[in-house]
Amino acid sequence: MIARRRAALALVLLSAAPGGAEDGYDLWLRYRTLSDARALERARTVATELVIPAGSPTLRAARDELRRGLGGLLARELPVSEAVSRDGAIVAGTPSRSSAVAALDIGADLGRAGEEGFVIRSTRVAGKKATVIAANSEVGVLYGVFRFLRLIQTGQALASLSIVEAPRVRHRLLDHWDNLNRTVERGYAGFSLWDWQKLPDYLDPRYTDYARANASIGINGTVLTNVNANATSLTAEWLAKAAALAGVFRPYGIRVYLTARFSAPIEIGGLKTADPLDPAVASWWKAKADEIYGLVPDFGGFLVKANSEGQPGPQDYGRSHADGANVLADALAPHGGVVMWRAFVYSHEAPDDRAKQAYNEFQPLDGAFRPNVLIQVKNGPVDFQPREPFHPLFGAMPKTPLVMELQITQEYLGFATHLVFLAPLYEEVLRADTHAKGEGSLVAQVVDGSLHGYARTGMAGVANVGTDRNWCGSVFACANWYAFGRLAWDPMLGSEGIADEWIRTTFGNDEALVAPVKAMMLGSREAAVDYMTPLGLHHLMAEGHHYGPGPWVDRAARPDWTSVYYHRADGQGIGFDRTATGSNAVAQYFPPVAEVLGDVRRVPESLLLWFHHVRWDHRMASGRTLWDELVGRYQAGVDAVRRMQATWRSLEGRVDAERYEEVRAFLAIQEKEARWWRDACVLYFQSLSGRPLPAGYEPAEHDLAYYEAIRKRYVPGN
Amino acid sequence: MIARRRAALALVLLSAAPGGAEDGYDLWLRYRTLSDARALERARTVATELVIPAGSPTLRAARDELRRGLGGLLARELPVSEAVSRDGAIVAGTPSRSSAVAALDIGADLGRAGEEGFVIRSTRVAGKKATVIAANSEVGVLYGVFRFLRLIQTGQALASLSIVEAPRVRHRLLDHWDNLNRTVERGYAGFSLWDWQKLPDYLDPRYTDYARANASIGINGTVLTNVNANATSLTAEWLAKAAALAGVFRPYGIRVYLTARFSAPIEIGGLKTADPLDPAVASWWKAKADEIYGLVPDFGGFLVKANSEGQPGPQDYGRSHADGANVLADALAPHGGVVMWRAFVYSHEAPDDRAKQAYNEFQPLDGAFRPNVLIQVKNGPVDFQPREPFHPLFGAMPKTPLVMELQITQEYLGFATHLVFLAPLYEEVLRADTHAKGEGSLVAQVVDGSLHGYARTGMAGVANVGTDRNWCGSVFACANWYAFGRLAWDPMLGSEGIADEWIRTTFGNDEALVAPVKAMMLGSREAAVDYMTPLGLHHLMAEGHHYGPGPWVDRAARPDWTSVYYHRADGQGIGFDRTATGSNAVAQYFPPVAEVLGDVRRVPESLLLWFHHVRWDHRMASGRTLWDELVGRYQAGVDAVRRMQATWRSLEGRVDAERYEEVRAFLAIQEKEARWWRDACVLYFQSLSGRPLPAGYEPAEHDLAYYEAIRKRYVPGN
Repeated sequence: MIARRRAALALVLLSAAPGGAEDGYDLWLRYRTLSDARALERARTVATELVIPAGSPTLRAARDELRRGLGGLLARELPVSEAVSRDGAIVAGTPSRSSAVAALDIGADLGRAGEEGFVIRSTRVAGKKATVIAANSEVGVLYGVFRFLRLIQTGQALASLSIVEAPRVRHRLLDHWDNLNRTVERGYAGFSLWDWQKLPDYLDPRYTDYARANASIGINGTVLTNVNANATSLTAEWLAKAAALAGVFRPYGIRVYLTARFSAPIEIGGLKTADPLDPAVASWWKAKADEIYGLVPDFGGFLVKANSEGQPGPQDYGRSHADGANVLADALAPHGGVVMWRAFVYSHEAPDDRAKQAYNEFQPLDGAFRPNVLIQVKNGPVDFQPREPFHPLFGAMPKTPLVMELQITQEYLGFATHLVFLAPLYEEVLRADTHAKGEGSLVAQVVDGSLHGYARTGMAGVANVGTDRNWCGSVFACANWYAFGRLAWDPMLGSEGIADEWIRTTFGNDEALVAPVKAMMLGSREAAVDYMTPLGLHHLMAEGHHYGPGPWVDRAARPDWTSVYYHRADGQGIGFDRTATGSNAVAQYFPPVAEVLGDVRRVPESLLLWFHHVRWDHRMASGRTLWDELVGRYQAGVDAVRRMQATWRSLEGRVDAERYEEVRAFLAIQEKEARWWRDACVLYFQSLSGRPLPAGYEPAEHDLAYYEAIRKRYVPGN
Repeated sequence: MIARRRAALALVLLSAAPGGAEDGYDLWLRYRTLSDARALERARTVATELVIPAGSPTLRAARDELRRGLGGLLARELPVSEAVSRDGAIVAGTPSRSSAVAALDIGADLGRAGEEGFVIRSTRVAGKKATVIAANSEVGVLYGVFRFLRLIQTGQALASLSIVEAPRVRHRLLDHWDNLNRTVERGYAGFSLWDWQKLPDYLDPRYTDYARANASIGINGTVLTNVNANATSLTAEWLAKAAALAGVFRPYGIRVYLTARFSAPIEIGGLKTADPLDPAVASWWKAKADEIYGLVPDFGGFLVKANSEGQPGPQDYGRSHADGANVLADALAPHGGVVMWRAFVYSHEAPDDRAKQAYNEFQPLDGAFRPNVLIQVKNGPVDFQPREPFHPLFGAMPKTPLVMELQITQEYLGFATHLVFLAPLYEEVLRADTHAKGEGSLVAQVVDGSLHGYARTGMAGVANVGTDRNWCGSVFACANWYAFGRLAWDPMLGSEGIADEWIRTTFGNDEALVAPVKAMMLGSREAAVDYMTPLGLHHLMAEGHHYGPGPWVDRAARPDWTSVYYHRADGQGIGFDRTATGSNAVAQYFPPVAEVLGDVRRVPESLLLWFHHVRWDHRMASGRTLWDELVGRYQAGVDAVRRMQATWRSLEGRVDAERYEEVRAFLAIQEKEARWWRDACVLYFQSLSGRPLPAGYEPAEHDLAYYEAIRKRYVPGN
């Protein structure tokens, strides 16, 4: 008894001790002891012993997580028992591994839980009060354990639980744009977690924590390498390294995927061609797949970026994307692997509208792909802008599973130092109505397969994790990793609920903190849109590194890499005419959508300049002219950041000093850079509109020439 | 009383808690509670309260370190008092800041302590038993605090202390070869600690821990940027970032230095020339120095690599190194800054012996430099090889202060995954006898200024720290950072004492661990010499990245970048004739040294092939032929690594699991790579010698072609 009290005490006091520095490493798996005495007592009553077999690595991981989590949250070391011996048993397992679970009458619930889901139920076992965490698969048990711990972390009632959950999407993936030299393209959190030099011989314990974090939100796959791919990653030497990582991730239900460079048969295979219809090429890919599965029996498959931004691809040989994807798919099929073929492509010629290209190239191929090919489509038709309309391919390829690709890393959203909670962006696109099968044909239903009856489904998030101690470059950026995982599990979850969970698991249940932080987070994406690209503007950033504004950029390797290509501002007005009088990109949407977007009176103002070229004196819903509205939005974005700063200052003392200071400093950077965006854009557009600044607009600190002259060097992620 | 016991308990138990994971981050500042009950009781008696003013950032740092250190080591939260109130007071301060210190009769000791030293003395203050940590400067107090904590960490007697210490070298510097994109040239511990993108706005708490670690071993300066310099680091935008770091480091007595790219006046100054004798160039450097000191009042100065490996320099304008160094020195002089000008140079033409060049270029310039110029000389005449003779410039420039440059990062020593304790290497060169003023003219006496009466002195270590959680890429690599700092403080310290301190502060005082680990460490450098470059061989590594063996390398941009240039092996023998019949490099040493080194019968066998070309059948002291001896040394190196593995395995359970596993995995890598070195070198040399392998040599796993075909890609540090 004394021993137990001592351990408890140590755990309680840990939170204030230097060894437990709040550096963000714990993420949402922060198991500090519950501060609310009643919640603590409730949880201690519900959890008094653990009954969980440990006959496999996955079940051991589940048991270890329960011990770690409950040890921290309850400040108690719970005994592990063979069988239920007291009230408060936590019984976890599969029917085949746990006789206690097998004896329960939960067959119907387990049926609903499916292959990866779980059941959590308050019940009695051997006459004692117990909480059962049951699943058909071991990874389902692990997911259930994380869910149960989150219930405790977030202060939920625990006495009469009856939860059945199953993921609505099958492939829930992080895409790492990590290079073999450990730089990360568009990475703002340090460098790649994969220490290739020491692999496969040394397995950094951080790999395990990475797997824990992903499993806790249901992510079940990770693409280790950059879509701008390097054939070296498919050599025997590097496959051994990937296999070592796969070994660490396997107990957590996470499969490893690799990017495949389409020209690998030439570069590392010694062939003269990579023509997908050449039998030698097909054989090479088959042999390569066999080699990989010999090392990684549960290898997930290939992600491919082909014929896009200079990457090689089947079009180099006059073949189609389907030809290219299928040769890889055939190689993987015997082993159960899949190909994710990216629709983010554009042809060598400058197009009339880059936004139309993916649809133009891929929609006609619907039905031409092997069953184990998924087409990976970005949320919008251009490139991860602060706001885009949903991609018109969603709903337009009923015979081809579409993976939604979201960007978690903030390439166009201020990098890691801007607090921009992305769940509202994700939610916006997932809940958009494609009208593919009439009203209520949501993008989420395309992605989860229910609209078209896809046999395979997927969601991919471009990772924002790196070697930074806090994983994502900032504490708040981790909320985007969390949000992605939760939405990949259930694309219909709401942003507010996700924010609530994340705040409570990351900062605790202090209600005086939860509400204001939630308000900050939920408003933050609209703030970024306002100070960067309001009213449907897009692609206004500086060239190359995408850090800071560059609306004046008018020269680049391609016209569609300039800003003027997109905003088309002149003395009369601004915006890209994508209606029938322009590029007619609206026609790629189903008619009810196209009619609204194509009508300047009906299009949501948030997308006005995406679809229309509008006069500066166009009257907005507010009664203001477009010019005044535009300037007002830029100002509103800055004002919103300042309100976030004020909110955060009001929380000093409610957050540990280390994380408080990080967020404070980063918000100051964000405010400075929001002003930079506002002033650079407003001054530039004013040089075209010639209109005076409306009242309420803060004068710019410098003139336009100053902003145009800014050159940023050694920007990370490039 | 209860409160105190709780805190104590928490601290005791911390060591087993997940929050206190043993990931190496704590370095030698690992303040786990003393495990020996008697030592704990002794220390608790000696330290019961703290009397230390906190009127300045440096004194606050000292007080915080005492609280952190004693809180951990004693598992007690000590009260801070205004005046001594009980037995066991720790009284720290300067005479001017602390009345308790001022009242003590320690003037003579303080005189010996000098500007940066300290006095630690057991005495009575106000009738109570006290330990006084006194110094003339605040940073001296900080150094004394670290020294006192180390006494406790290492289990020393504390009751009757009487210590006076002062550093014997003035500039004790870490040189970071960190680039502005955060890659680190020859860095094997992740990437640069300096997060330039977030500077100056965000100050990562890790910067403070970096400063603590350095201050704890007396390092008082840090060169932030790579010697292969980038002029951008001298622009206003980047100076602000450096200034922010300087602000963090200042309380710890650490000055910031920058590398100066000699062509900066052209590249960022808009001048047409960087000719050091051009008045506009001189003015530019003066203005730049003024600008820097406006931001960093205690800026240390410039480190310059000029006219070496493609770097620009004064010779581009027909000027001398002295002309180049002096123009920078004149700019810095009004502010008290120094120039460290590197002697690691070689001319564009392929030389008869690269080892002779630094001496040839610099020795004639003795006396031509301004008083605030120091010439920075590598320990040996080639380039940080596993073993080199001491550099002949030591002793040869009596009028010019020479800074010794040591490499802490293991560029040529297997990177971070090879356990190679470098103190024996450092000690070997520091204790070498130059005979410059007769016998007993040690290199250490050149470096500490005592031999020639240098007004300024310095030692510089090329840093091995990076973003890896354990700082140096491996737990044991941190011992080299530690050893460098201790030797910069006192160049006559011995390797064994340094190892003992480091082991005890890093792993604790378990005597069953200390002795075997010390033996491992002390033998490790000779093991590396044996499996890489025994008997005076050098520069046998693969081209470019220096990872692994490449004795066959015979083509490179310059002949003196090949391996064959250095080993000169053929059918008859092996070695570089640097005697009078060869390059006569021996003549650069003072006659008593030159006579020994130049005589094949007297030269130490460890340097035999450095100075002599020797027949394969040359008879060695062992009675074996040179060939048999050479092969035997390679085998001995591998055998030594295997003994290290066995030693480490015997310590399982005496080291925490995380560090145990890291070292175990890294020793396995080292054993594998030691075999790689052995087999590649022996097979290659055998292809020339045509001689059979002696008994006792393990057959190579592969043939020579296999080793020659190995290509390493994406090697870190390149």
